[in-house]
Amino acid sequence: MGSLDTNPAAAFAAFGDGAGFQPLNPEDVRSYLHKSVDFIYDYYKTVESLPVLPGVEPGYLLRLLQSAPPSSSAPFDIAMKELKEAVVPGMTHWASPNFFAFFPSTNSAAALAGELIASAMNTVGFTWQASPAATEMEVLALDWLAQLLRLPTSFMNRTSAGRGTGGGVILGTTSEAMLVTLVAARDAALRRTGSEGVAGITRLTVYAADQTHSTFFKACRLAGFDPANIRSIPTGAETDYGLDPAKLLEIMQADVDAGLVPTYICATVGTTSSNAVDPVGAVADVAAMFNAWVHVDAAYAGSACICPEFRHHLNGVERIDSISLSPHKWLMTCLDCTCLWVRDTHRMTDSLETNPEYLKNHASESGTVTDLKDMQVGVGRRFRGLKLWMVMRTYGAAKLQEHIRSDVSMAKMFEESVRADDRFEVVVPRNFALVCFRIKPQNCMTEEDADEANRELMERLNQTGKAYLAHTVVGGKFVLRYKFVILPEVF
Amino acid sequence: MGSLDTNPAAAFAAFGDGAGFQPLNPEDVRSYLHKSVDFIYDYYKTVESLPVLPGVEPGYLLRLLQSAPPSSSAPFDIAMKELKEAVVPGMTHWASPNFFAFFPSTNSAAALAGELIASAMNTVGFTWQASPAATEMEVLALDWLAQLLRLPTSFMNRTSAGRGTGGGVILGTTSEAMLVTLVAARDAALRRTGSEGVAGITRLTVYAADQTHSTFFKACRLAGFDPANIRSIPTGAETDYGLDPAKLLEIMQADVDAGLVPTYICATVGTTSSNAVDPVGAVADVAAMFNAWVHVDAAYAGSACICPEFRHHLNGVERIDSISLSPHKWLMTCLDCTCLWVRDTHRMTDSLETNPEYLKNHASESGTVTDLKDMQVGVGRRFRGLKLWMVMRTYGAAKLQEHIRSDVSMAKMFEESVRADDRFEVVVPRNFALVCFRIKPQNCMTEEDADEANRELMERLNQTGKAYLAHTVVGGKFVLRYKFVILPEVF
Repeated sequence: MGSLDTNPAAAFAAFGDGAGFQPLNPEDVRSYLHKSVDFIYDYYKTVESLPVLPGVEPGYLLRLLQSAPPSSSAPFDIAMKELKEAVVPGMTHWASPNFFAFFPSTNSAAALAGELIASAMNTVGFTWQASPAATEMEVLALDWLAQLLRLPTSFMNRTSAGRGTGGGVILGTTSEAMLVTLVAARDAALRRTGSEGVAGITRLTVYAADQTHSTFFKACRLAGFDPANIRSIPTGAETDYGLDPAKLLEIMQADVDAGLVPTYICATVGTTSSNAVDPVGAVADVAAMFNAWVHVDAAYAGSACICPEFRHHLNGVERIDSISLSPHKWLMTCLDCTCLWVRDTHRMTDSLETNPEYLKNHASESGTVTDLKDMQVGVGRRFRGLKLWMVMRTYGAAKLQEHIRSDVSMAKMFEESVRADDRFEVVVPRNFALVCFRIKPQNCMTEEDADEANRELMERLNQTGKAYLAHTVVGGKFVLRYKFVILPEVF
Repeated sequence: MGSLDTNPAAAFAAFGDGAGFQPLNPEDVRSYLHKSVDFIYDYYKTVESLPVLPGVEPGYLLRLLQSAPPSSSAPFDIAMKELKEAVVPGMTHWASPNFFAFFPSTNSAAALAGELIASAMNTVGFTWQASPAATEMEVLALDWLAQLLRLPTSFMNRTSAGRGTGGGVILGTTSEAMLVTLVAARDAALRRTGSEGVAGITRLTVYAADQTHSTFFKACRLAGFDPANIRSIPTGAETDYGLDPAKLLEIMQADVDAGLVPTYICATVGTTSSNAVDPVGAVADVAAMFNAWVHVDAAYAGSACICPEFRHHLNGVERIDSISLSPHKWLMTCLDCTCLWVRDTHRMTDSLETNPEYLKNHASESGTVTDLKDMQVGVGRRFRGLKLWMVMRTYGAAKLQEHIRSDVSMAKMFEESVRADDRFEVVVPRNFALVCFRIKPQNCMTEEDADEANRELMERLNQTGKAYLAHTVVGGKFVLRYKFVILPEVF
């Protein structure tokens, strides 16, 4: 080590056994990946014929595979054999065209390619410097999607006038998007009310319709909100299970009168249970009266808003504080990809910034770059922007819209079939590609009998392996959820 | 829709244009992935010759690529061309053998294959039923790795006596592992102290050495702990920057005397800054006196503990509450893969469980299965267990140990070179594969001069593009961090 010019790679080239362990040997990488691609090709060709819900018992896999890790290496084909023979028969096939259960996790050839390349580069873009292209690609992809959604420029990283005050980040789940915005809103409310430390947290209140995903109520607890201050606002058929702004106002005002501090409202565009839509603009108007943060969870249905005919569901978005949607749910971007945009990134980074010595660098200190670690829970982060960009770059807006419309049309056709059949009823109006229906109580059937009949129908359908659908309870009724994504490859 | 036996796939087969948009057409999937594999093969062959830290300015990519999303589709080759010409030149190449900066994100052919197949199946294993094989594979992979680490059976999902009380989950980041365990410990302390709601949160205290990763202090704030109650315990050269249990005891006792409630201690095995090791057993003994939760963050160095000669760093692990380590950092499992084990999963699920109607199912209600959504922040989750299992299944314990030892040997060789050179000094003893060194202050150099000389050395090295290393500050000194992972494919 006599000279600083020594090339460390060269200096160590003589080290060790050249024939030693080479886990990233390019020939092996190519060979393993080609075998994987063959597997995937066959899987997509046959997935329709596999039972969508497997008939396995708890513990089945542990009985098939060895319970202790092997001490020596094995050809990759062994892992592939066990994958085919032991793992695949126990999968619930989300990629099956017969999967109608939850919001789908949609996928595409372009997303898979982007995900694979990102995994191979394996870059960790916590700061701009740690991978400039990864950060800038994420910023670009988020700005592109914001344009497709016609979000106001206040949510964009770059506007025609230069760098804006807003911006986005790609996270793993909607729950994380809720958590980081809840924390930002919490800290702002504590500062605003002059709380000593977190003492004031017991006065902070949060709000959402009772149809809001349970993960919101969990995120509130994670952020330390008092369970007694988490308001679940009742909805009913009169608003198609959407949040009633008058009720919201009444409850928020009552909280203020009781000395509490309204802090955060979560509005949903397309609830998980029944695809209900909370009125974004009206909620924002109520929130403004109390200086509360409004987050819009458009995890699933937000993707539909790239079509002009659905965009009205986001009306008023220019008056909210943050919005998240998950392209992995309906924009074919494979797990995981949840986009979060905020109107003022400083309100996020005030709570989430860290600045450890080992990450300090000129670019961050210049203030001209985005360090995405300050918009999320963790430090490490995958290069998720690549697959989102590849999907938009390859398919373009028109194909993405066609994909949304195709799903919605099929759901509409199914809905019409249900309406045309006396034995069934559609329980809530269909907004997107989810149809909530059930066997109607007929003749001497009580509501309880009808619930039981619907449960039995669901279980019998699921047991066939030919379809998998889920249920919900809306207005006290057991309802079947038929979620359309007929994956286009099979038609 | 006259019959319940109608096959929905067949019923809709006539729908739409058969030549329409097919984002998962198996031929396209194969073609796009083959192109991606070719790209990856070339990338690994040439990455050593690329400047490891790119010389791009903020905003460079936004100037190269179009600022608006395309409206129509384009051949996949266009995206690949822009990837090669615009993205790659702006990447910081974490896969380069000349990357010595942060903890590496290590990778392997087996991990890449597992990640790709998981992305293609695109399953969302939030409950056991949502994908039995995905849940069971994750459980199995965690139990295998626990065996390699010789963790006590109390951390395993399955023991020879059947299902244990402990268990694990694969998360995206160490920060998330810290957050979910902090929340569990917080809620337990609130219950224990009879707090009304979260009112008692102002009395809860948490502890970590000042060398602990900044993300711990952030996770504490996310979970609502009072910033004034987050104790950063000073360390020094006398303990090689590890936590001093006597100091910890003193501070915890002072807090109890002041009416506060010690709740959680984070001990690190291999700090990010200098690879310091907190004494796990001694910390557990102090914690036991106060009923505080002990979490061990072994994100990077935990992987080394699969080698018997490093296992002593985990001595006392049977007395802690939870431990996390990230195989993506040193066990070649590509981003992201952070394993968290807890001794009593009920203490986690008590805080993190949700039970929405649409996810209810017989298997969950039977209590015989693990629903992994109740061990993490979000609901959705990728099938990360597959790649971790594939790495262990294919390479086996012996090769994984060889990989760790190879990195450590190279670091040792570098350390010896530094020690043999009068101009340099090793600042903290090397524990694993990180060497912290600096130019020694010589002749008339002040400590400030030395800091400046080291900063200049780092910047000049990094600007060459031939190497990328990072710095830290230890004991007030500016220190260079040379982190070894000479990726074995190039030697």
